[in-house]
Amino acid sequence: MASNSCKSKILSNVLSCLNYKTGKFIIAESKRVGTLYRVIQLSIIGYLVGYVFLSKKSYQAKEESIQSAVITKLKGVAVTNTAESGRMVWEPVDYVIPPQGDAVFFIVTNFIETPNQKLGNCAESPDVPDGHCKGDKDCAKGESVKTGHGFRTGRCLRDNGKSSGTCEIYSWCPIESCHQPQDGHKHMSILREAENFTIFIKNFIRFPKFSFSKANVQDTADKYHLKKCHYDELLEPYCPIFRLGDIVYRTGHSFQDMVLRGGSIGILIKWKCDLDRDHSECKPRYNFTRIDINASRESTGFNFRHARYYKNESGEVYRTQFKVYGIRINIMVHGKDECIYFVS
Amino acid sequence: MASNSCKSKILSNVLSCLNYKTGKFIIAESKRVGTLYRVIQLSIIGYLVGYVFLSKKSYQAKEESIQSAVITKLKGVAVTNTAESGRMVWEPVDYVIPPQGDAVFFIVTNFIETPNQKLGNCAESPDVPDGHCKGDKDCAKGESVKTGHGFRTGRCLRDNGKSSGTCEIYSWCPIESCHQPQDGHKHMSILREAENFTIFIKNFIRFPKFSFSKANVQDTADKYHLKKCHYDELLEPYCPIFRLGDIVYRTGHSFQDMVLRGGSIGILIKWKCDLDRDHSECKPRYNFTRIDINASRESTGFNFRHARYYKNESGEVYRTQFKVYGIRINIMVHGKDECIYFVS
Amino acid sequence: MASNSCKSKILSNVLSCLNYKTGKFIIAESKRVGTLYRVIQLSIIGYLVGYVFLSKKSYQAKEESIQSAVITKLKGVAVTNTAESGRMVWEPVDYVIPPQGDAVFFIVTNFIETPNQKLGNCAESPDVPDGHCKGDKDCAKGESVKTGHGFRTGRCLRDNGKSSGTCEIYSWCPIESCHQPQDGHKHMSILREAENFTIFIKNFIRFPKFSFSKANVQDTADKYHLKKCHYDELLEPYCPIFRLGDIVYRTGHSFQDMVLRGGSIGILIKWKCDLDRDHSECKPRYNFTRIDINASRESTGFNFRHARYYKNESGEVYRTQFKVYGIRINIMVHGKDECIYFVS
Repeated sequence: MASNSCKSKILSNVLSCLNYKTGKFIIAESKRVGTLYRVIQLSIIGYLVGYVFLSKKSYQAKEESIQSAVITKLKGVAVTNTAESGRMVWEPVDYVIPPQGDAVFFIVTNFIETPNQKLGNCAESPDVPDGHCKGDKDCAKGESVKTGHGFRTGRCLRDNGKSSGTCEIYSWCPIESCHQPQDGHKHMSILREAENFTIFIKNFIRFPKFSFSKANVQDTADKYHLKKCHYDELLEPYCPIFRLGDIVYRTGHSFQDMVLRGGSIGILIKWKCDLDRDHSECKPRYNFTRIDINASRESTGFNFRHARYYKNESGEVYRTQFKVYGIRINIMVHGKDECIYFVS
Repeated sequence: MASNSCKSKILSNVLSCLNYKTGKFIIAESKRVGTLYRVIQLSIIGYLVGYVFLSKKSYQAKEESIQSAVITKLKGVAVTNTAESGRMVWEPVDYVIPPQGDAVFFIVTNFIETPNQKLGNCAESPDVPDGHCKGDKDCAKGESVKTGHGFRTGRCLRDNGKSSGTCEIYSWCPIESCHQPQDGHKHMSILREAENFTIFIKNFIRFPKFSFSKANVQDTADKYHLKKCHYDELLEPYCPIFRLGDIVYRTGHSFQDMVLRGGSIGILIKWKCDLDRDHSECKPRYNFTRIDINASRESTGFNFRHARYYKNESGEVYRTQFKVYGIRINIMVHGKDECIYFVS
Repeated sequence: MASNSCKSKILSNVLSCLNYKTGKFIIAESKRVGTLYRVIQLSIIGYLVGYVFLSKKSYQAKEESIQSAVITKLKGVAVTNTAESGRMVWEPVDYVIPPQGDAVFFIVTNFIETPNQKLGNCAESPDVPDGHCKGDKDCAKGESVKTGHGFRTGRCLRDNGKSSGTCEIYSWCPIESCHQPQDGHKHMSILREAENFTIFIKNFIRFPKFSFSKANVQDTADKYHLKKCHYDELLEPYCPIFRLGDIVYRTGHSFQDMVLRGGSIGILIKWKCDLDRDHSECKPRYNFTRIDINASRESTGFNFRHARYYKNESGEVYRTQFKVYGIRINIMVHGKDECIYFVS
């Protein structure tokens, strides 16, 4: 019986799968309630269409990717006076590295010059710990000096009467004298006029989905105005020419310090465009940040070395090495249009 | 009484929170209706599993990030003939700046050479408004000429009998003569063969989530074909060697104008890979756009200056300055595989 | 009648639009069922608030964009000995291209030098198929050699008694001798010490929405430790100084092969920061991949040519061309903080 009852229970459960369950409804045939009901329904649809679609524009598509091109051009000259090279004029072709107008570039503001280096033997710099020696046995021939400038020749060079010195090395001689960046140093020379250098930033953007393109240089701008304006957040927010001094000032850091030790600055161009409105409403906003500030003190600053190579009459190569301190500018472009479709 | 009734109303409202409200259902025990109901239910599930999951592959994961490396190599030679340097051959090492095979590079197509500039005194260019003068008092010593080339020496240089001239400056002399880019000018020389320069673009991509990697250079391609093919949208859509003339043609702009004044072109490589299908189906598509077209007329084009430094026997530095016009190529890689998991 | 009945049917259908249809509900006034129902409701809300919001932190905002700056500095010296230039010391200023401390740079590890090239006439390289000739008629004057080095002068140069040779061309002469990269070749010289070159990577990041910034160089690190540590995944995972040999080793590829033929390596820095926890928990992870491995064999490797220009006493330009093989490093920074708000 029990098993029978169980079987019938299972069967009834299986069959109950085939039951069709529905809610019980009441049809109220009152015209008043019905009209009210439909009016409410239409209001909701009307609200959606009228408010959300038209005024909030949520029917538009959110454009993810923006295509952008940046061309930069610097102007301004500086003069320096060093023991090594005398009076020297710096034009953009001399102080912008690399020179090709990219979105990322470096402006020399301070430098140490080591002219006329030739391959040969000379003493390693005392600033390199691994180059110190007390006798020739500390200078095993052919070994390189760790974080140094060349290869040991086997000799220890000591000044008269001193008990220690530095190994002789095969290297580009003379070795660069390691100065700490310091104002007024005789081997170091600051490009004081750097504050007035101007950077002309041309930025072209394109929203590929909408075939919409624009530039930060206004088409309507008269040529003359463009030649003499300077960016100012309040007075000239759309002038694409920036004074280097203003850029550093806007990051909140000291120009004197950046010019001396170097630094890295990001210029963020934000385009916020509502492509349903007039295209002239689509405008750039500029933002300036110093981006190398979180390191410990001894890591701040920006410098690197580069060299110019020459050959003398006998075909021997020699070079002038520059340790340059300066400001690296990194122009980044962000774009957002306000269009949002419902269908992603 | 009223307060009492109010209290009881509140109490009844609070208690009514504990009421449980459910719909009233009818269980229709008709096997016909029930079977139909379950059949419809199963069809929907079957549709979801069969169609959406298997053929539409919406179960796959959408990969956001793609890793990409681009290596470029140019080929082709050009010859120019200028008053300054005579007949000159241009190889990639001469006309590609920078030379290291990056995804962004510049091809010289036109140039103005100012050879043998030395530091010294000469007249400022008449093209610089701030350099004009009527007498020595307009040329205060030591001041730089705004957007000019050097520092005033204090003298105003005027041609015989003229009432105005330009200030003498300390600068790299002679000053570059400011030519407008113009074909046939004697100081300007176009690299006419630039149209036939070829760009070999190697593009390696990787979808890190899937450890899937591929290159636009086909593994199966025979070496000989790769050496002689040229990209063509219809005939050779997968040949990674592009003629510069074809690239400019595909942007819809005039080659003559770009070669003369310069310009900026974006090459977009789109990878659309369905990683469920055979890997050989994962192929690149190339797209070419001119990206500097929205500026006002006087801002179009692309040029910059660079210099080569020399030293003479007496150790004096001199330089040759090149104002180069040309085409900047910017290769951008976008990747999308078609895999979409439900779980994001 | 029929039309009348139809009309009335339509009318009744239209009017039935105004019917108001609602489910029939039962209000169960059982306190037991009601309490259970509310308890379940509160549990769900409690679970959402307690678990999802507080422990899973899904209330935080997901930060999309990270701002990042990378500064690189290389150390180490190498020595090479070639027939052309004798013993030469390579410092970072010589082997890092470009020298300005960017996130993408190239390290020379092997090179072929072609010194003292001058503009003039010489034989095209036999490696260029289009330069071969049997007689002067194969060398039409003024035409460029396809993928060759210059322009035909009209003469076919053949060695004594041979039936074929190569066209004479106007070019930078002598032409580079096309060596395959091969160890021990007399014109080729490997920078063997490259394995011990070190790369100091400074990476500064910023989450703009949270005004949070950090660097991979620890503020607390003592100066001395930073000078001598080397990155090691287990022992020194936060030391920002990397041996080139270690980097190549971590990609799983042969150092000998990469040094000889060149290659391209990506260093991915991943920041995973939970900004709700202590800021010192926000740390970088480094990842190393070779990114040029999918091409067919003859496409692998990385090389390019660059030149140094000189002038002799008579003002004639000559150059030394270097075909350099080496390792391109591409540093990419990804950032993700763990904050996720519900409101996107």
